[in-house]
Order: sequence, then structure tokens, then C-alpha cells
Amino acid sequence: EMQVERIDVTNRYANAVVSGDTIYLAGLTGDSTLEEGIVEQSRDIFAQIDSLLSNCGSDKTKLLSMTCWIADLDDYDGFNQAYDDWIDPAHLPARATVRADLVDPMFRIEIMATARRQAKP
Amino acid sequence: EMQVERIDVTNRYANAVVSGDTIYLAGLTGDSTLEEGIVEQSRDIFAQIDSLLSNCGSDKTKLLSMTCWIADLDDYDGFNQAYDDWIDPAHLPARATVRADLVDPMFRIEIMATARRQAKP
Amino acid sequence: EMQVERIDVTNRYANAVVSGDTIYLAGLTGDSTLEEGIVEQSRDIFAQIDSLLSNCGSDKTKLLSMTCWIADLDDYDGFNQAYDDWIDPAHLPARATVRADLVDPMFRIEIMATARRQAKP
Repeated sequence: EMQVERIDVTNRYANAVVSGDTIYLAGLTGDSTLEEGIVEQSRDIFAQIDSLLSNCGSDKTKLLSMTCWIADLDDYDGFNQAYDDWIDPAHLPARATVRADLVDPMFRIEIMATARRQAKP
Repeated sequence: EMQVERIDVTNRYANAVVSGDTIYLAGLTGDSTLEEGIVEQSRDIFAQIDSLLSNCGSDKTKLLSMTCWIADLDDYDGFNQAYDDWIDPAHLPARATVRADLVDPMFRIEIMATARRQAKP
Repeated sequence: EMQVERIDVTNRYANAVVSGDTIYLAGLTGDSTLEEGIVEQSRDIFAQIDSLLSNCGSDKTKLLSMTCWIADLDDYDGFNQAYDDWIDPAHLPARATVRADLVDPMFRIEIMATARRQAKP
């Protein structure tokens, strides 16, 4: 029996790991080939979350928690603007946001989320 | 069927999200209107954890994990003092503490925890 | 009925907490009595993960997520080298790595992981 399922696996980590009803997403970052601002990078990450959760049989209304690392606290308002545009206000996750240096200096934000998957009938 | 339950919801996140038997708390911070020290801010967060877990049908003896971000490593001893006064030594969570800049410069500490909820009979 | 199980408990936290099928590990660091480099400290942490998961009836093929804090981004390659040597490429976790100051200046890396435990029959 398959207990742990992995989605969108790279050579080093899986972008999504499913264990029972819980989905664990990797720390997601925007496209590092583009020098984009916080709003664009946040939107890119949210699109990745939508896609990964869809591939796991879930969606953003089932987000449980989000840990958000931003490289510059001056980006906090821009991040919140992109977040407010995307998140479903009727289904809000537990969220934490702190500042951290990220592994690529072009990254302005990294997000690691967990979500619930619809239990199979 | 309600699969995910949210407690103490703000305009941007839920302070507690319950999925099955697991409770995910948001990154909690002390009252930012007061210029308080690490001990007072930690105690304020612990009181919030007690209250949130109580509202979820749980308590601090069922804490699973705690991620603690402190803005100044010189506050580590003060944080541990407040933690030791509050935590139940017979029911200790997995814990990590690192330094990070927090979104409000008055915040000295932010804590994100998970806990188990008593399964309904 | 025992709902939450704690393994390798110190005076302040448990190095592993088991809730149902999910294992929460504490933020693990290398041996601080040795001035070792990133590769040695990473290997030391991976050995601790192996041992803790074994004590919980699991192993590294059931890792779900890893949050990795490194004190110096110049250590990222060395960390990945040790990680690649240790991780099972057929069973990769969701992973995030960011820079953070750690509570002991001799610590170069801290890792907090979750894993699945084989459900008891």
C-alpha cells in the first residue's frame, strides 16, 4: 500500500508530498530567471500552489498553514496585496511571515504551505 | 461534511485551523501596542496559545511542535525562562528556535505551533 | 489511550513527537562541542534523524517535509552535498532552506523535519 505520495519531484526534493489527508508543499520561490518584484514573485508562487494542490486533488480553500519568508521587510505590503488578491477570504490558513535571506539573491519571497486533501471515499 | 475548521479568523489568516486531529496555529506575536520585553511578550503568546487550543478542544499538554523566531538572540534566555514557567514538563513539544527579523520592529518573538486535538468519540 | 508519544525528551523539548501516523522532529543541530564544518554538522544531524525515526518505527524513506536553516549561505553547496549523499532519491521530502542566525554561533545548520510512521496493523 502506498502511504506517502510525491508530486512534481526534482532531483533533490518533491514539490508536494501527500501523507493521508495532509499535503506538504516544498518551499516555493518565483522564477529566478526574471528580476521581478514582490507582487509578481508572490503571484508566481500562488500559481504554483494552485497547480500543485490541483495535482493532489485539493485547492486553496483547503490550505491549513503557510510559512512565508520575505527577503526584505519593505516587501511586506506588496506580498499582502498579492496574497489578498489570491486567497479565498472564506477559507483562510494559519499564516506566519518573517524576514530571511533566501538561497538565491533574486528570490524576494519563499512560501511553504500545508493543505488538506479531500479524503478518498 | 466540515473537513477544515477555522478559529479566531482575521481579515487575512485564521489564528487556528483544525484538520482532523491536528491543530495548526498562526504565527503568534505579543501585543504590539506595548513596548514590552521578551518575557512579557512570550507570556502573552503563551496565553494566546492556551486560549486558542481551549477553543479547539485541546490544551498545551497536546502540543506537537513549536517554531519560535526571536528577533534578538540576547533574548533567548528570557524566552526560555517564560517557556519553562509555562510549558508542562511531562508533555514537551518538538521545538526549534532561530533568529529572524519580524514584521513589526516592536515584536521580539513570534511562535507558530501545532497541537493534537482530542478526537471526537 | 496514549494519543501523543514523545521520544528522546530533554528538559525543554522532545526530539520526536508522534501523533497518529505523523512524526514531528525538533530543530536538530550538530554537536556544538566540535568546531566542524557544514558537511560534518549536516551528517551529524542526518544520523540523528535516522536514529530518531528508527526509534519511532520509521525511516528516512518516509520523510514528509524538512525545514533547513543555514547560518551562512556560502554553506548551501556543502549542505546539499551531504544531503545528496544521505537522502533516498526515490523518497524525497518537501524541503525549504533559508538563512537564519542560530542560537549557538558554532551551529552552522539546524533542521526540523516531519515524517510518516508506519501505521500499526
